[in-house]
Amino acid sequence: MATVLSAIDHVGVAVPSIDEALPFYRDVLGMVLVHRETVEEQGVAAALLDVGESHVELIEPLSADGGVARFLAERGAGLHHVAYRVASIEQALEACRGAGLRLIDEQPRIGIRGSRVAFLHPKASGGVLTEIVQPSTKDH
Amino acid sequence: MATVLSAIDHVGVAVPSIDEALPFYRDVLGMVLVHRETVEEQGVAAALLDVGESHVELIEPLSADGGVARFLAERGAGLHHVAYRVASIEQALEACRGAGLRLIDEQPRIGIRGSRVAFLHPKASGGVLTEIVQPSTKDH
Repeated sequence: MATVLSAIDHVGVAVPSIDEALPFYRDVLGMVLVHRETVEEQGVAAALLDVGESHVELIEPLSADGGVARFLAERGAGLHHVAYRVASIEQALEACRGAGLRLIDEQPRIGIRGSRVAFLHPKASGGVLTEIVQPSTKDH
Repeated sequence: MATVLSAIDHVGVAVPSIDEALPFYRDVLGMVLVHRETVEEQGVAAALLDVGESHVELIEPLSADGGVARFLAERGAGLHHVAYRVASIEQALEACRGAGLRLIDEQPRIGIRGSRVAFLHPKASGGVLTEIVQPSTKDH
C-alpha cells in the first residue's frame, strides 16, 4: 500500500451497553473517556477512550438489526474491528483498489468525531474487519 | 488502575498460517515485519509487524489443542486479543488485584521478544481477552 498506516487509530469493541462497559475501561484500566456520539449512519452509539496515540471505541447497537447487533447475538461482547490511521483516505482507498482488495465502502463515509472512514471486506483481510480512518483535523 | 496504560502494544490476530496471512499485512497494508518467534509456552508461532507505536501480532497454533486452535475452530481467523503496554507488569498486576479483577496469570510470564505479559480473564474484561505487556528494555 503506497499509503503509510501511521497508527492503530482504535480497536472497536462491541458491547450491549456502553454504560455497563465503561467502568472497566475508565475506572479499572484508567483510560480517559474523551468522546461520546451517536453515529446514526452506522446504527450505533459509540464512546472513545484514550490510550497512548490510540483509542478504544466502545460500540453499542441502536437497534436489533445491523452488523453490531448481529455480532453480539452470534458471539457476545468482544473485539469487533481494528482501525488504522491514514493521512489521506482517498489515497488509501486508491491503494486498496490498486491492490485488488474487496471493499465494503468504495467511498469514504463519515465516522465518529468527524473522521472519514472506510471498511475493507473481512474476506479481503484475513477474517479481521479492518477500517481505515482519516481523523478530522480538529482531533489529530 | 494506578498503572497508566501507555499504548496499545498490539492486537493479536489468530490465523491458521502466518505465511499465508503475511502478504496482506506486509505487502498490501505495507507494515514492516520486525520479528518472528515460536512461543512454546503459549503453543504458538508469532510474527510482529510495526504500525506506529503499536504492532499487529499474528499468532498461529503449533498444535490442534490450546486456546488459539480452539478459537480458530470455533470462529475462524480473526481478532483474538488486545494488549496494552505498561511500564511495570508487577504494578499493573497489583492494581488489577486491588480492583478485584479475575486474572488468567497471577504472575507475569515471558511473552514474545522477551516481554513480560499477563492476561486478564475475558469475564473480567467485558468479553475481550485483554493482555498487559511490559516490553523488554531492548525493544522499547
